[in-house]
Amino acid sequence: MDRNIAVLAGTGEISLSYARGLSNALGLEMYSVESKVFPDGESYIRLPEIKEGNVIYIQNLDPPQDKRIWEMLLSLDKLRSTGYHVILVTPYLAYSRQDKEFLKGEAISVALLLQLIRSLGAYEFYTIEVHQMNSLKFFTGRALSLDPYPYMAGVLSDKLPHPSEVLVLSPDIGAIDRARRFADAFGSEFDYIVKRRDRFTGEIYMEPKGIPVRGRSVVIVDDIISTGGTVAKAARMLLEQGAYNVYAVATHGVFAGNAVEKLKSGGIKGIYVGDTLPGRDGVVQVELHPMVAREFSWAKELS
Amino acid sequence: MDRNIAVLAGTGEISLSYARGLSNALGLEMYSVESKVFPDGESYIRLPEIKEGNVIYIQNLDPPQDKRIWEMLLSLDKLRSTGYHVILVTPYLAYSRQDKEFLKGEAISVALLLQLIRSLGAYEFYTIEVHQMNSLKFFTGRALSLDPYPYMAGVLSDKLPHPSEVLVLSPDIGAIDRARRFADAFGSEFDYIVKRRDRFTGEIYMEPKGIPVRGRSVVIVDDIISTGGTVAKAARMLLEQGAYNVYAVATHGVFAGNAVEKLKSGGIKGIYVGDTLPGRDGVVQVELHPMVAREFSWAKELS
Repeated sequence: MDRNIAVLAGTGEISLSYARGLSNALGLEMYSVESKVFPDGESYIRLPEIKEGNVIYIQNLDPPQDKRIWEMLLSLDKLRSTGYHVILVTPYLAYSRQDKEFLKGEAISVALLLQLIRSLGAYEFYTIEVHQMNSLKFFTGRALSLDPYPYMAGVLSDKLPHPSEVLVLSPDIGAIDRARRFADAFGSEFDYIVKRRDRFTGEIYMEPKGIPVRGRSVVIVDDIISTGGTVAKAARMLLEQGAYNVYAVATHGVFAGNAVEKLKSGGIKGIYVGDTLPGRDGVVQVELHPMVAREFSWAKELS
Repeated sequence: MDRNIAVLAGTGEISLSYARGLSNALGLEMYSVESKVFPDGESYIRLPEIKEGNVIYIQNLDPPQDKRIWEMLLSLDKLRSTGYHVILVTPYLAYSRQDKEFLKGEAISVALLLQLIRSLGAYEFYTIEVHQMNSLKFFTGRALSLDPYPYMAGVLSDKLPHPSEVLVLSPDIGAIDRARRFADAFGSEFDYIVKRRDRFTGEIYMEPKGIPVRGRSVVIVDDIISTGGTVAKAARMLLEQGAYNVYAVATHGVFAGNAVEKLKSGGIKGIYVGDTLPGRDGVVQVELHPMVAREFSWAKELS
């Protein structure tokens, strides 16, 4: 092997799609991990012969997450024992919401995951919009969470209303930085949603902290759409408060159960997510590999 | 916590069943790992508060194997960081057939699995009839593969013909030690099956190396029944050669796809396996936890 660099596609369609994107954008050779599943459900992993000594290994952790994790650990172990230098790119980091011991005895899953990745030899780690930036400390090496919102704001500029008509909202104060990053790039105002209890009826209302929505289009920005419950409920109330239209933007579209239906029946006009998880009917995906490729522009010179 | 010992049931029904068996036989307190699966497919793991300082942790690796592996790694990590001394019991060790690099670049899955178990703090490891004894070297600590055949021979003595009428066969010379161990305890003769090509028709025949089967009952003994193809084919031929009846005995009944049907249509009269994997219609399971409990008789004195 020589010292220049190649792209290695891990298991699953999304890993392959990002690997192809990076390989094309950077002019790097692409290889794929050979994999299959035996009749009893066990995974088989075989590494190809890679001529280059440095590998940008793309392994997404979309469902079935635990199978992908195991396939990744097997591949990392083999890459290390064969002597490669490995940068791991995991567009969707599974288990990122299990980042602390909320109740005594709970496993901090993202901690173990990142520790294993590091101990099996990956020396750099890239993901897209990790749930808690703080989680990356569990990887004792260079770990980056790429901010996709400026890129998505650019791509979505012809799909959303004019920035002057748009109010960008985060579902709560904790996520306001995401709304800010999207709004700054899109050129709109931003705010966050607060919950208020009606003094007379006792019902919970959701509304923007400071900026009324009447007559404006709203874009709710979050990192993950999972069951879609909160966003659907917020949309319904914002429309009642006179919002013209409500859109949802997220990096990772998990869409557990009937999340898409729930969002549509909440009155959401458009759902826009990254391509880090499988696509769904009624959802528009934004390809994020061009943004990831920009991070590796230095690799062009090694090829 | 104090220095005596408890049993901890890992995830899945089989782990729980072995843990109950050990707890009852040894008079030890039993705890269970709390687990659930979120709507998006991620596992949640929470350890109970365990009063004792030493833990016999039972985690079987039945399907879905990769989910069980991940749940086990999370639990081991949490047990270690909480300060417990852990003995791991894994009745069925998944990935035990991926024990060497048959083709260049293949992951040696059982090696990584045992290395991770060790590095996450288990200081002793028990399984039942591992596929290759040599695999246990990947666990750099005390690792035991329990021999279930003497125990199974005892339990099956009233389900199989009289030992003097029985010929015990292994499907090939590589597995003859399993046939020998069963036969010695059962009190029968044993042999192994060879493949011979018919000089005139070119067809492959399977028959015992040295002892004719005519008029005898045959018990084919193996470690794992997976697709059932080889055993079904052997049974058909042994019956053609005049065997009175053919039975199949194995430690681990994987039964991928339509394996049970295949065995039945090959003329197998009875299928007997351990309870290390889920049961199937038409298959008799032998409970192996009493045999495992015997290994831990020393723990009674610590309770």
